[in-house]
Amino acid sequence: MAATRQLHLGAFMRPVSIHTGAWRYPGALPDANFNFAAIRRYIERLEAAKFDAFFMADHLAVLNMPVDALKRSHTVTSFEPFTLLSALAGATTRIGLVATASTTFDEPYHIARRFASLDHISEGRAGWNIVTTANPDAALNFGYDSHLDHDARYVRAREFYDVVTGLWDSFADDAFIRDVDNGLYFDPARMHVLDHKGPELKVRGPLNIARPVQGWPVIVQAGASDPGRQLAAETADVIFGAESTLAAGKAFYADIHDRMRWYGRDPSGIKILPAAFVVVGDTDEEARARRAHLDSLVHYDSGIGSLSSQLGYDVSGFDPDGPLPEIPETNAGRSGRERIVEAARAKNLTIRQLAARAGSYAGLAFVGTPETIADGMEEWLVERGSDGFNVMFPWLPGGLDDFVDRVVPELQRRGLFRREYEGTTLREHLGLARPANRFFPASDRLVAA
Amino acid sequence: MAATRQLHLGAFMRPVSIHTGAWRYPGALPDANFNFAAIRRYIERLEAAKFDAFFMADHLAVLNMPVDALKRSHTVTSFEPFTLLSALAGATTRIGLVATASTTFDEPYHIARRFASLDHISEGRAGWNIVTTANPDAALNFGYDSHLDHDARYVRAREFYDVVTGLWDSFADDAFIRDVDNGLYFDPARMHVLDHKGPELKVRGPLNIARPVQGWPVIVQAGASDPGRQLAAETADVIFGAESTLAAGKAFYADIHDRMRWYGRDPSGIKILPAAFVVVGDTDEEARARRAHLDSLVHYDSGIGSLSSQLGYDVSGFDPDGPLPEIPETNAGRSGRERIVEAARAKNLTIRQLAARAGSYAGLAFVGTPETIADGMEEWLVERGSDGFNVMFPWLPGGLDDFVDRVVPELQRRGLFRREYEGTTLREHLGLARPANRFFPASDRLVAA
Repeated sequence: MAATRQLHLGAFMRPVSIHTGAWRYPGALPDANFNFAAIRRYIERLEAAKFDAFFMADHLAVLNMPVDALKRSHTVTSFEPFTLLSALAGATTRIGLVATASTTFDEPYHIARRFASLDHISEGRAGWNIVTTANPDAALNFGYDSHLDHDARYVRAREFYDVVTGLWDSFADDAFIRDVDNGLYFDPARMHVLDHKGPELKVRGPLNIARPVQGWPVIVQAGASDPGRQLAAETADVIFGAESTLAAGKAFYADIHDRMRWYGRDPSGIKILPAAFVVVGDTDEEARARRAHLDSLVHYDSGIGSLSSQLGYDVSGFDPDGPLPEIPETNAGRSGRERIVEAARAKNLTIRQLAARAGSYAGLAFVGTPETIADGMEEWLVERGSDGFNVMFPWLPGGLDDFVDRVVPELQRRGLFRREYEGTTLREHLGLARPANRFFPASDRLVAA
Repeated sequence: MAATRQLHLGAFMRPVSIHTGAWRYPGALPDANFNFAAIRRYIERLEAAKFDAFFMADHLAVLNMPVDALKRSHTVTSFEPFTLLSALAGATTRIGLVATASTTFDEPYHIARRFASLDHISEGRAGWNIVTTANPDAALNFGYDSHLDHDARYVRAREFYDVVTGLWDSFADDAFIRDVDNGLYFDPARMHVLDHKGPELKVRGPLNIARPVQGWPVIVQAGASDPGRQLAAETADVIFGAESTLAAGKAFYADIHDRMRWYGRDPSGIKILPAAFVVVGDTDEEARARRAHLDSLVHYDSGIGSLSSQLGYDVSGFDPDGPLPEIPETNAGRSGRERIVEAARAKNLTIRQLAARAGSYAGLAFVGTPETIADGMEEWLVERGSDGFNVMFPWLPGGLDDFVDRVVPELQRRGLFRREYEGTTLREHLGLARPANRFFPASDRLVAA
C-alpha cells in the first residue's frame, strides 16, 4: 500500500523559523525577516528536494502579547507573505506557493485578483490558505473596536469562498480568441458577470483576469473547530492539520472524510497535512539534546507571551508555578486554545510548563535520526493519520538543510516521496483535479490542453 | 543649465501597450497580458537603459464600456500589478517598481504592509501610485451600489496617506537590536503605536514590518483636478502629469510649485513626469506613418468605447458625425473628462473624431526621429514643463526597443540622461531625500548608513 500512496510535503515557514528561540540558535540568521536572498536560497533548496509547496505564515498585527514577551520575539516583523511569494515565483519553476489571506479583513475582488495573478505568473503554482484571523488585535488595525464573533467570521468565510471561486470562473478557458484580422479580442458570450448579492457581500464582477491556470488556485484551510472542519470538508483541497498524536490524527482524518461524504465529495479530493516540527540528529539522543538546547533559548517572558497569545488571554499575572485558572471565553481561534486547556488538565501542567511548551512547540514533533523520523511519517501515512505533513524547521538554515539532505533521501529510498516532479502545477503535485468552470463547464481544459 | 538638470524616465506600462490597437500591430504579442516571461524581458531592457522606474497601470474592474467595444480590447484582463511587480523585483536589481493602489477600495494596513514589503524585497525600489479610482464600475465590485463622491474620495485619500506613512514609521530605524546573548530582539521604546482615530479611518498599529529601506516608498500621484493637485502638492514625490502641450505643462509645473511653497515644501522635492507617447522612425514622416498605421487598427466600436470610458458616460448612441452633446456630471475622474470636452469645443471635433483620439492616444506624443524626440524632451526639461516623462510605448516589444536602442543613446549623448545608475534606491534615482521618521527623527539613516 505504501508504494502506491506517497507523502505530500509542504514547508511551513517563517523567515527565522516558527520557534521563538530560533533566532538565538548557533548559526541562525536573526535578520532573516528581511533577508530576501536567504529566503530565496531556502525555497531553492526545497524545490530541489521536490517539496509540494512553500507555505508562509501570516499575522495582520503585531502579536498580541505583553511587551516584555514581544521584545524577545523575532515574529514582530516580517514580509507580507503574498508579496514575498510573488517575488519567489520568479525565482522558482515547480514548487507550490501558498499564501495566507484573511476573509475577515479583505475584499473578495482583491483576493481573487491576487491569487489568480500569482497563479498565472507562476504557471499554476498558487495556493490560498483561507483564514478568518484569530488575532483579536488585527480587528483594531482594520477599523473595528473589537474582534468579530468567531461563528460570524466563518459565515462570512463561506460566502467569501463562493464569491472568489465565482470570480475565478468569470471567463471560459476558451474566451480569449485574439483574432487579429477581425479585431476581436475575446468572445463576450464566454464572459460571466457574477452579480453576487449575499448577506455579507455584494460583488458584481466579472474579474478582470483570465481564468487561473489551475482553474482555481489550491484552497488550503487550517481551522480545526467545528465550523472550521465544516468549511474545510465542503471547500478545501488541503487541510493544514494540527493534531499532535497519531490517534487524534486518525480521528480527525476519518471525521473530515465522513463530512466530505456527507457533502457528496470524494475523500481523495482532499489532502490532510498536519504541521510537524522536525529535529534531526545522528542519534535520537542527539536530536533530543538539540531540541532541548533550542527550547532553552526561549526566555520565560517570551514563553508566557506566546501562551497568552495562543489562549487569547493575558496569563502573565498568574502564579507561574500554579495551575491554569479558568479563563473567560474570547473570540480568538478556538481550537488552539482548547488543545492547551486540555493538555493542562490532562497532565496537571503549571503555567511555567505551559509557557515553556508555548514558546517552543507543543504540537506534533518528529525528533530523532532520519530513520526514526521516516518511521514516524510512514506510520502516519499508512495508518491514515495524514497524507503528508507541513514540515516546520526548528531553526534556519541548519534545520532545513538537515531535513533536505538526510530525511528526504530516506523517504525517497522507502518509496514514500517523489524523486522528480511529475506535473507542473501544485494541483498536479497534490494529485488534485482541475475544477470545472461552474458557468462554462464544457470549455474546461481547452486552453490547458 | 541642461547639463546639471537631467531627465527622469519612467515606463508607463500595460503588458500589450496602453494603445487599444496595439495587440493587432505587426510583431505585437497579443497574449502578453499573461506572458510573464515577455514582461520580464521588457523590464530587463528598461533597466539596462537606466530607466528610473517601471510603472504598472491598474483597474479595479473590467473597463466600463459597451460590450461591442470591450470585446475588442486587450485591456479586459491582465495581472494585478502589485503581484506582477513583486515577481519582477526578484528579476531586477536597480529599476524602481511603481504600483497603483486605491485608497477608496483598500485598507491602509494592507497598503502599508505590501509597499513596505516590496521596498524591503527590492532593497529600496518601491513606489506607490495613490489613486482614488475613477472607474465607477469598481464600486460595484466592492460592495457599493454607486460610486463614492469625487471630493469624498480625496478626503479619504488624504487621511489614508497620513495613516500609511504613520504606519511606515512604526519602528525607529535602530529599533532592531537582535541581542542574541540577552534574548532581546528589539527595543520596545523604539516602537510607536499609531492609534489613529480620524473621520474616515481607525487604525491602531503598529505595522508588523520594519521601516522601509527608503523610509517611505516613493509617493506618486496623477490626479490633475483641483483636489488632486492639492493632495499632490502636499504629499507627492512624483506627479504623473497629463498635460499635452508645453504651455499647459509649464502652467501645471508652476502651479504645483506654487502650491508646494504654500505648504512650506521645497519644489525640488517633487518630480513632475507627464505621460508621453513616443513613436520612433527613421524620418519624421515614417514615424507619423507608423502611428497612423497603429491608429488605423482601432475599430470604431473600440474607440467609442474608450471615449465613453474616459467620459464616464456612454456616448455610443449619439450621431457619430455630430458634435459632443452636453453630458451630465458624474463621479468619475474629472480631469480626463474636462480635457476631452475642451478639445471637442476648441477644435469642433465630431464624436467619430473624438472616438479615434480616445481609442488611440490623445495626449502628449513625441513622434519622429530620435533627434526630433530628444529635441522635444529637452525643450520640456529646459523650459520647465517637466522633470522628465512617463514614457508609453506604442506597441511591444518593437516600440520599447526603438526607444531603448535609439532615443536613450541620443539623450545620453546630449547629457540629458544618466549612463549609469548612481544610487541604488528609487529615491536616489529621482534625487529625493529619505523622509525622516516622524516619531523617531534622530534615528534616521542609522540603519541605512
